[in-house]
Amino acid sequence: MLPEIKGLNEECGVFGVWGHPQSASITYYGLHSLQHRGQEGAGIVTTDGDVLRGLKGEGLVTEVFKQHDMSELKGHASIGHVRYATAGGGGYENVQPLLFHSQTGSLAIAHNGNLVNANALKHQLEGQGSIFQSTSDTEVVAHLIKRSGYSTFSDRVKNALTMLKGAYALLLLTETEMMVALDPNGLRPLSLGTIGDAYVVTSETCAFDVVGAEYLRDVQPGELVIINEEGIRSERFSYGAKRAMCSMEYIYFSRPDSDIQGVNIHTARKNLGKQLARVVDIEADVVTGVPDSSISAAIGFAEEAGIPYELGLIKNRYVGRTFIQPTKSLREQGVKMKLSPVRGVVEGKRVIMVDDSIVRGTTSKRIVTMLKEAGATEVHVCISSPPIKDPCFYGIDTSTHEELIASKHSVEEIREMIGADSLTFLSVEDMVTAIGRTDQGEHRGQCVACFTGQYPTELYPDTVLPHEKELTR
Amino acid sequence: MLPEIKGLNEECGVFGVWGHPQSASITYYGLHSLQHRGQEGAGIVTTDGDVLRGLKGEGLVTEVFKQHDMSELKGHASIGHVRYATAGGGGYENVQPLLFHSQTGSLAIAHNGNLVNANALKHQLEGQGSIFQSTSDTEVVAHLIKRSGYSTFSDRVKNALTMLKGAYALLLLTETEMMVALDPNGLRPLSLGTIGDAYVVTSETCAFDVVGAEYLRDVQPGELVIINEEGIRSERFSYGAKRAMCSMEYIYFSRPDSDIQGVNIHTARKNLGKQLARVVDIEADVVTGVPDSSISAAIGFAEEAGIPYELGLIKNRYVGRTFIQPTKSLREQGVKMKLSPVRGVVEGKRVIMVDDSIVRGTTSKRIVTMLKEAGATEVHVCISSPPIKDPCFYGIDTSTHEELIASKHSVEEIREMIGADSLTFLSVEDMVTAIGRTDQGEHRGQCVACFTGQYPTELYPDTVLPHEKELTR
Amino acid sequence: MLPEIKGLNEECGVFGVWGHPQSASITYYGLHSLQHRGQEGAGIVTTDGDVLRGLKGEGLVTEVFKQHDMSELKGHASIGHVRYATAGGGGYENVQPLLFHSQTGSLAIAHNGNLVNANALKHQLEGQGSIFQSTSDTEVVAHLIKRSGYSTFSDRVKNALTMLKGAYALLLLTETEMMVALDPNGLRPLSLGTIGDAYVVTSETCAFDVVGAEYLRDVQPGELVIINEEGIRSERFSYGAKRAMCSMEYIYFSRPDSDIQGVNIHTARKNLGKQLARVVDIEADVVTGVPDSSISAAIGFAEEAGIPYELGLIKNRYVGRTFIQPTKSLREQGVKMKLSPVRGVVEGKRVIMVDDSIVRGTTSKRIVTMLKEAGATEVHVCISSPPIKDPCFYGIDTSTHEELIASKHSVEEIREMIGADSLTFLSVEDMVTAIGRTDQGEHRGQCVACFTGQYPTELYPDTVLPHEKELTR
Amino acid sequence: MLPEIKGLNEECGVFGVWGHPQSASITYYGLHSLQHRGQEGAGIVTTDGDVLRGLKGEGLVTEVFKQHDMSELKGHASIGHVRYATAGGGGYENVQPLLFHSQTGSLAIAHNGNLVNANALKHQLEGQGSIFQSTSDTEVVAHLIKRSGYSTFSDRVKNALTMLKGAYALLLLTETEMMVALDPNGLRPLSLGTIGDAYVVTSETCAFDVVGAEYLRDVQPGELVIINEEGIRSERFSYGAKRAMCSMEYIYFSRPDSDIQGVNIHTARKNLGKQLARVVDIEADVVTGVPDSSISAAIGFAEEAGIPYELGLIKNRYVGRTFIQPTKSLREQGVKMKLSPVRGVVEGKRVIMVDDSIVRGTTSKRIVTMLKEAGATEVHVCISSPPIKDPCFYGIDTSTHEELIASKHSVEEIREMIGADSLTFLSVEDMVTAIGRTDQGEHRGQCVACFTGQYPTELYPDTVLPHEKELTR
Repeated sequence: MLPEIKGLNEECGVFGVWGHPQSASITYYGLHSLQHRGQEGAGIVTTDGDVLRGLKGEGLVTEVFKQHDMSELKGHASIGHVRYATAGGGGYENVQPLLFHSQTGSLAIAHNGNLVNANALKHQLEGQGSIFQSTSDTEVVAHLIKRSGYSTFSDRVKNALTMLKGAYALLLLTETEMMVALDPNGLRPLSLGTIGDAYVVTSETCAFDVVGAEYLRDVQPGELVIINEEGIRSERFSYGAKRAMCSMEYIYFSRPDSDIQGVNIHTARKNLGKQLARVVDIEADVVTGVPDSSISAAIGFAEEAGIPYELGLIKNRYVGRTFIQPTKSLREQGVKMKLSPVRGVVEGKRVIMVDDSIVRGTTSKRIVTMLKEAGATEVHVCISSPPIKDPCFYGIDTSTHEELIASKHSVEEIREMIGADSLTFLSVEDMVTAIGRTDQGEHRGQCVACFTGQYPTELYPDTVLPHEKELTR
Repeated sequence: MLPEIKGLNEECGVFGVWGHPQSASITYYGLHSLQHRGQEGAGIVTTDGDVLRGLKGEGLVTEVFKQHDMSELKGHASIGHVRYATAGGGGYENVQPLLFHSQTGSLAIAHNGNLVNANALKHQLEGQGSIFQSTSDTEVVAHLIKRSGYSTFSDRVKNALTMLKGAYALLLLTETEMMVALDPNGLRPLSLGTIGDAYVVTSETCAFDVVGAEYLRDVQPGELVIINEEGIRSERFSYGAKRAMCSMEYIYFSRPDSDIQGVNIHTARKNLGKQLARVVDIEADVVTGVPDSSISAAIGFAEEAGIPYELGLIKNRYVGRTFIQPTKSLREQGVKMKLSPVRGVVEGKRVIMVDDSIVRGTTSKRIVTMLKEAGATEVHVCISSPPIKDPCFYGIDTSTHEELIASKHSVEEIREMIGADSLTFLSVEDMVTAIGRTDQGEHRGQCVACFTGQYPTELYPDTVLPHEKELTR
Repeated sequence: MLPEIKGLNEECGVFGVWGHPQSASITYYGLHSLQHRGQEGAGIVTTDGDVLRGLKGEGLVTEVFKQHDMSELKGHASIGHVRYATAGGGGYENVQPLLFHSQTGSLAIAHNGNLVNANALKHQLEGQGSIFQSTSDTEVVAHLIKRSGYSTFSDRVKNALTMLKGAYALLLLTETEMMVALDPNGLRPLSLGTIGDAYVVTSETCAFDVVGAEYLRDVQPGELVIINEEGIRSERFSYGAKRAMCSMEYIYFSRPDSDIQGVNIHTARKNLGKQLARVVDIEADVVTGVPDSSISAAIGFAEEAGIPYELGLIKNRYVGRTFIQPTKSLREQGVKMKLSPVRGVVEGKRVIMVDDSIVRGTTSKRIVTMLKEAGATEVHVCISSPPIKDPCFYGIDTSTHEELIASKHSVEEIREMIGADSLTFLSVEDMVTAIGRTDQGEHRGQCVACFTGQYPTELYPDTVLPHEKELTR
Repeated sequence: MLPEIKGLNEECGVFGVWGHPQSASITYYGLHSLQHRGQEGAGIVTTDGDVLRGLKGEGLVTEVFKQHDMSELKGHASIGHVRYATAGGGGYENVQPLLFHSQTGSLAIAHNGNLVNANALKHQLEGQGSIFQSTSDTEVVAHLIKRSGYSTFSDRVKNALTMLKGAYALLLLTETEMMVALDPNGLRPLSLGTIGDAYVVTSETCAFDVVGAEYLRDVQPGELVIINEEGIRSERFSYGAKRAMCSMEYIYFSRPDSDIQGVNIHTARKNLGKQLARVVDIEADVVTGVPDSSISAAIGFAEEAGIPYELGLIKNRYVGRTFIQPTKSLREQGVKMKLSPVRGVVEGKRVIMVDDSIVRGTTSKRIVTMLKEAGATEVHVCISSPPIKDPCFYGIDTSTHEELIASKHSVEEIREMIGADSLTFLSVEDMVTAIGRTDQGEHRGQCVACFTGQYPTELYPDTVLPHEKELTR
């Protein structure tokens, strides 16, 4: 039986620079390009060799950092973090990088991923006297490093990493070193690059293009990269690791201009759409995608099927945290929020609506209804991924078993529930093939746990499930 | 010879509701869907039959209005405005609706467009004792209404309107009436709709979909619509008017889900792209569009040409007013701002880059350079409109003669300046045909002044030209 | 019969500098020292000889102006204004200086005082075509200047001033001149000073000490001072004027370190307290004052009576606009707001409580109750001014006839209503004598209208009465 | 030899309520009345029996808490804290109450005082694996409680308290209990009161008057008060404690309407002033005090000496964090900041200037100069306390040995340095006698360490000295 669902997760983005005189500015632009990975909070910690200076806050990168802040974030090395919006929890305490002070030196940590044994570790640590000020599982990592008996910092870090289970792409910064670590399954993307002599590390390669960096290589599962004034070196803290890269990074989470392990995201999505067109045999007038993440797949579908691609749905760009949600009575009168149908495009048409995934089914139902109200005569829903049947414990905010519509219902039942004229998913194998990775492992080294329930790591009775977020699909 | 260039223009959006108990909330969502027409300021004025209440401010709709403000904006009728960002001028005083108090009643005005005789009228009015607190040409309208000798308010308004030359879509609100007026050339879009018994008016029909309204009809050139508790009535203040709808509303300014005079914007743009594909004869590997406004044209081009459409360029969604611009030294190191090339898509490819227009040429040059640096072997620039040779005096912020690259240079010269392997524009006639309006007038009732220099209205030596804005293309 | 009560008044402070390279900074510190005269809004307009630049906003001086704003307010001359908090009205539009643009030049106006014929003038001006954007009577002045037929600016100003009735200390700034005008009764204080070669003008002399200026002289009733690059000159726009300086400036409004026409405010108040001690014959243990304005009078009383002065009441310094007012239920449980009694000082004591005035009586009643609850055995209320029986139309926010407790009730009735053991006021003559001005006019040139109903100017049926403010006493 | 000087101190205020349905609101008003004890930050943590909810932030109480926050701070018990402004350190992390989460329950701590063995304890705790996120010594207390081996929470707290050396008035809140502890020397004030059935605790009794509470008793040195649903009980964690109440709380820190151990602060100060008058034999025309803290002493001096008390110096009330400090060039031109002399009062006069203390001498020198420039013929400085010769390690921000002018210089030398015509201090014994406590201990139970160097607790080589703050006197 799967673990009880509780807690808080962190689907986020990390970025770091070592060896650049404007490291904080570079990190600002890097984080800015990773903003889609987290809008709740952002932070940067820098070192000038002597002192760690940090600034963090709730909100977008552009809200947290002002011009004059940048000049105070002095130093040749920086790490940064953008944090995913969670429903209720959070607050300033949980914004990263976390910064810890000690009489022998300071430590900053930025973490993307989710630890499945965080609660177990917390129980252990509290038994030994640790106290916690955030609800983030990242704080556990700092405690484990602190408590390790090893004498060198890198040994203490490696010792701590062996205690962690789950997904983690970690950046650590001390006065004199930056460390980069990836979990033994390599569940989250993490890449190294260079700007001249400086090293850069990022959750997604799109940040390299934005800051003018060159891609060097991906960080390997179970690898600890240590960068200091003597240069860069690589160590292993885990052997026999098997890559299990999150499929959802390809399907909907990452930015289309990023490459993950050599595969461009836009291209992968377009291929998913093409594959979908091959398995669907429906006559239709237009293909449309759900913005933004499904546009590439929809274009691929249209191209393969020879049906015109049209903008049948439009997203309002200006919906932010301060947007006033329409009241129930206004929604019932037809006031839309983020997404509107384009009547001129769908009226009187048979519409193929391509989306990347179905989670709870509520969004799909709303869009189908919207398109039909706008005059579509048929709406065929084509999903560029397999049905999501199981929750993710590694940092992607899907949902609980209870709420995952595909966990309890057949495809035909879902079709009826969302009011579509037809509903098609990709199979796991078609999805893996379309993405087109060259990895030799099972499922070409992709994690497909949320489609199959086969988790690449152990789970525990108190494993923390990504908290339910506002995003319902 | 054309008038000297100076002053301030107002490409903006207007929205109004009459007869709805939550008129301010409806207006909030309406303005929100018109946000692309102006991000500098926003305002709403309501009437409850006795008192006009206003709230306005600098910034986005979601920044200006907070939850608790809505409850204070009581009343069954509201007008609202979103204001275009201008370079230096502006400030709170220029944010609309403007609100004027008098011992016989109050008046609020919201204006989209640009008056070509504003300075002439100001000189006249100042000679008669008027004083001005804003630099907006809208203030002139209030003075003209006030000074009119007619006894009824609607006669005074009509009398004032006859004095105006240029482009104006106007909403007026008093304690007991809402008035809607469009200039005799109908240069700007303005449409009427209904929500049950309530009337709605908007610059673009996309707002109707968002607030659940039904489209009724477009406001006619030279028409004054008067709505009060006795119902709605239409009057004419100008006869013999000829429609000259701004071509740029179709080409790049309006939202793709809006219809202007029966033509859907996305469809028009896709058709412009298709037409472009017909006149271009180039072998290429991929078609890409410059986000956001050129995506529809690029898809049309790709569809017609049978060349795959790809996301070769990506726009960062989170660039707002508080974004810290990279310093020159960082830009030289390759730090990007709003737009990034997608290396995985363009590397080693012959790229057709579709854009909607070229103004100064600087943006085109930057994008071509960016694509080539990202590995494109050829970059063919295809523009879904004719060369812009003349400034607009009606509210679209293109630029001055000096700065309009097509005003001084041939197509071949421009191609060389922007570094493209080829450069193609649409002809005026192809553009008009592709958009596909059914109007019987010259150029099917489109204003093509910025392409041909043939202005639909008189101009004056002191006509105010749209101030130069940050947007350079 | 007195005019109907309606409208908005402006008890405020003005400050100006001509001929100093850091005129805006000097004005900032000047306004800061006048902050007690108005906390609702603040503004500064500067000229560098070519352009008027303005910045204004709602809130305190320190809230409106930030460090980087100061560098933008360039120029050798500035005028500034602090605005009194009004209950409901107001908003940004009413914050001064008001700034008017015209094709022949700009004009900024800052005004302290209240016009008694503002409504009459507005009716006239609206009849001639003027429109108004604020509810401030100051806007009238700009219209009158604009409409004057005279050819020179100073003649137009003088012509406009002859139209005004009531109280006004006015600063005007154009690109090339600063003008200073005082109403023919000199109802409000206004003084000239110098900093080296620069001229400074202020509502209160305390600002001279703060900015390091030397006092030169007071502006005379009916005087227009004109300062430009040719120097300073004085003109008269009214002859036969009689000084009627507001008594309340001495009694409670001005800062104790200011001098008005040669009389120091603290000294005047202390003398009012001494005089009060001479007419009161009560045995008591302690004298206490109501902070802040009555402390000087209380000390004078204690000194003269030989009774110890004690801090029987204390004011919380941190009550600002964002203070959350206690709910009714909390107030009933005893939660205090601004003022607390000092139990250790008043318990078991016979207390003489000196206050500067009684307006509605509600504050006096609250304080007497508070002192008794804190253990005072007797509370004798001694007021260092005569009973206020009539409203002020010149800018001091007292109240309406209805609400002025002394307008309807005898001293004995008031004593009973506020629960005091005795109640003493000063007579008008004692008050005038104690203040000790050397003016030869009636009441030594003081306005005593609020005590006697003898107004120094005409009044009109639609004279605007100072709006009722939060301050109830 | 005394410890090296480094670190951060916390002169602050604490307030708590147990058993009131609006505990957070009560705490808001309580903290508001303690605002003079700390303006850098404020926070409240509440419990409703199940969950601790906290809100804290940098700034004033009125800035940190908004109306809608209050409704979210649900619960029958609350603790709150206001934090003293420190020069450089600080930030959100150091704002209290600190809140710690654990799987067995949460804990909030608010602390007024300064631990002299904080660094020693940190070294110990870090050796055992603790990590720290703030630079506040308060975090140490939470770690000690966590690590205690005792089984009940109150035993763990008492165990932790025995490890602390120095000054602490502590409030602790868990889901089900509030605890109140005072160090064995009782160096800081802490009092218990009641509102009906609810218990209230505060740093100063002025808060009781503001929230309508009744004073019950002072918390005793070495006492731990435990309040929960079973009622209130008192325990001792230290025996043989001797009260050593901080003298500076009487002399300048506390609010005049507070009583500390039965002595009213205003009365104490007035008596200090009277005693000073008895030992000074100088002919003078006026007595003036330095606002705000020296006014009571100055009035006492004037009363005893029979010399008129006058407002010779005035403080600008509106100087806050956002005040723009005048540049050096403006200061040299005479622009004043917080304090101005009242020329009308001091010109041509022999002035006795009463101040509460001299720390560095810079402020005294500035005031003497200011008074002389304003025309005072003689300035005699009378200080209502003994010379401060030694730094405070218990939370009062005086300064380091280096900077304490009386540490290195004789009274005559100081007189010359500050430019006074005479300079008088009180002796320690006169000071103790004037304050008039009835305690039987040495110096009547007052701590006089800063005057004599005789510290009531042990000190350590790494004892943290209160960081130097902006306040120089």
